[in-house]
Amino acid sequence: MTNSNLIYLDNNATTKVDEKVLEVMQPYFSELYGNPSSIYEFGGKNANAIKESREIIKDFLGANNQKEIIFTASGSESANSAIRGILNADKSKNHLITTKVEHPCVLNTYKQLEKEGYDVTYISVNSEGEVNTEELYEAVNDKTALVSVMYANNETGTIFPVEEIAEKVKSINPKTKIYVDAVQAAGKININVKDTQIDMMGISGHKFHAPKGIGALYVKSSVLFSPLIIGGHQENGRRAGTENVPFIVGMAKAAQLAKDNLPDENSRVKYLRDKLETGLLSKIYNARLNSSSKNRVPNTTNIGFEYVEGELILLNMNDVGICASSGSACTSGSLDPSHVLKAMGIPFTALHGSIRFSLSRFTTEDEIDYALEKIPPIIDKLRNISPFQAELKELRQRKGLA
Amino acid sequence: MTNSNLIYLDNNATTKVDEKVLEVMQPYFSELYGNPSSIYEFGGKNANAIKESREIIKDFLGANNQKEIIFTASGSESANSAIRGILNADKSKNHLITTKVEHPCVLNTYKQLEKEGYDVTYISVNSEGEVNTEELYEAVNDKTALVSVMYANNETGTIFPVEEIAEKVKSINPKTKIYVDAVQAAGKININVKDTQIDMMGISGHKFHAPKGIGALYVKSSVLFSPLIIGGHQENGRRAGTENVPFIVGMAKAAQLAKDNLPDENSRVKYLRDKLETGLLSKIYNARLNSSSKNRVPNTTNIGFEYVEGELILLNMNDVGICASSGSACTSGSLDPSHVLKAMGIPFTALHGSIRFSLSRFTTEDEIDYALEKIPPIIDKLRNISPFQAELKELRQRKGLA
Repeated sequence: MTNSNLIYLDNNATTKVDEKVLEVMQPYFSELYGNPSSIYEFGGKNANAIKESREIIKDFLGANNQKEIIFTASGSESANSAIRGILNADKSKNHLITTKVEHPCVLNTYKQLEKEGYDVTYISVNSEGEVNTEELYEAVNDKTALVSVMYANNETGTIFPVEEIAEKVKSINPKTKIYVDAVQAAGKININVKDTQIDMMGISGHKFHAPKGIGALYVKSSVLFSPLIIGGHQENGRRAGTENVPFIVGMAKAAQLAKDNLPDENSRVKYLRDKLETGLLSKIYNARLNSSSKNRVPNTTNIGFEYVEGELILLNMNDVGICASSGSACTSGSLDPSHVLKAMGIPFTALHGSIRFSLSRFTTEDEIDYALEKIPPIIDKLRNISPFQAELKELRQRKGLA
Repeated sequence: MTNSNLIYLDNNATTKVDEKVLEVMQPYFSELYGNPSSIYEFGGKNANAIKESREIIKDFLGANNQKEIIFTASGSESANSAIRGILNADKSKNHLITTKVEHPCVLNTYKQLEKEGYDVTYISVNSEGEVNTEELYEAVNDKTALVSVMYANNETGTIFPVEEIAEKVKSINPKTKIYVDAVQAAGKININVKDTQIDMMGISGHKFHAPKGIGALYVKSSVLFSPLIIGGHQENGRRAGTENVPFIVGMAKAAQLAKDNLPDENSRVKYLRDKLETGLLSKIYNARLNSSSKNRVPNTTNIGFEYVEGELILLNMNDVGICASSGSACTSGSLDPSHVLKAMGIPFTALHGSIRFSLSRFTTEDEIDYALEKIPPIIDKLRNISPFQAELKELRQRKGLA
């Protein structure tokens, strides 16, 4: 299978850089390569390019003004900067809240903060992957410094009611800060942070067809923030390091394209995702939907294939040129099943055979048809070598099959 | 002046991306865009590209093994990661040492650490910009957690005897860790860290013709290190965030090219730098050399034009298409004179009119000849409008001129 006929259904792991994005970045490598901090015109041009890009990202997130946008090198850096930025700026409170299904960049930072003496409450989710908001609100107290909730889960696509959560948390403790990891929401659903109580929000360019290595962090202007990377005056003194001009320009272009594409995302991409999902669920008797059927980003589905092994599914799909994933790329290499699916209470029988399919605007109907043709025989083959034959037989009978 | 006939003499601020570097990066944007953490072949190819690049950077720094190399997004991130990484991993010692002429990414981090309760000793430099090593050794004590010294100064090019410093510091306190900011040395002089007592070393790709937004950090394998950016398992769990594959591949290519070019750097580039320096010093009576004439990287000179204003020089040079800088790009926008030149005791009369010229392998003799033709009349013009006419007259007489 060559690259050109690869069926790439792993867009929540990373995306192809849009050719239009690649094009606008090109001049900033070997032609307009000046340092934006330099006082001569040649550097000033790049300072302008950054300014224009910041305006676009400001609009992309619906922020109030440019100064609220800090460019970072990744979604992980955005999350680390936000969390440390808040806690280092104000050490008066020692309680933190997050959910059990956050990305490792939040979850592992919280685990480190526990070691440093913070009390952490991890909020549970239901079997659809939806966060238990009542549990969250009950956890908020006088000492709660920060609540981190993701906008959309990377493994299931489930959307959290982050605006409602921010509002309710602030009504309980107005001093509690809210960080929203919007890495999997940006470019998939409309974001408008200025009308919300959200204090900080992080995004990552490579999830919406910009390159890997660029992200942004929204910090509401009223929020005290202490920088993670200290040094020069770049990013208004809130993130040191010479600016990655080509990627900043590229991420802005990618944001524009993603915004323009939102209607397509919510119609065509959603149609293809639904076609794949219903097709697999109807063709494969041991398949089950792991994610919420309602509040979901349009491009993601997570399907559990009971009694078969996820890695074997992925390797067999790889042989026919289909890319998808079990768990998230950021936790791969680990033999533990997904912490997200575990938190949802997905039965043991499906936990190890769960696959995330994530589409993009470059996904075609032909590709979905190909996947629907190739995947069922793979699962059939793997069922035949499964050690759980009795259980499979029972499942077959329960479904009224032979 | 169009971009193509720009005389770019500000390569310590940033460099042009080498066309060969740009070329090797291209496939990793829109073709080989897989996530290196993914288990399918398409992601695995990128994991291999990172591995090959890490091997090259390992050799570039003369490290012992690949695991000692962490890819970062900038020299500033490398420095912040190194300093915090050491101090967070072992909180038993509270004394820090650095020099007065470090880059802001070290100096401002140290200032922040002072606020957090650390004792800091800032070591002075002499009038040539050379660090007072005796003062440094006397400052080392039982409580010294870390010594940060730069390999070469960004403003003067002065090389510090970092290997000797590391050895001597360890002989006084073997538990003290040594961080070397090699951002301005990498690609200009040969580096071989494995035969030294240096524990950590940071570099930045865009100073040697890789793009802005990529760096590396060497951490000796015996050193305990706590990550700055927490999250996924990338970089052996020492720096979270999806890897910037194109820039990693690009920085490796740039490192190879820089290594191959070292003989040229130390002959042709040095010759051009010397020609520019001696030319300006001989043609302009109020010019003085600010940096050490001996221990210097081959591409840098820093010249003080007494009784004239640096910004005016830069703006006038900009008009004839010559790019250079006063102070460093990372401190520009500030009206304070350079902290480096102040620490060297450069007289007030030259402090505000000091200009750094930094060449690269792309600098030609024609460009140097052009600069030597254009700069003297600019200084002449500015001298004529200087409010220090009496002082200039005295200086002229002292030099035996009319």
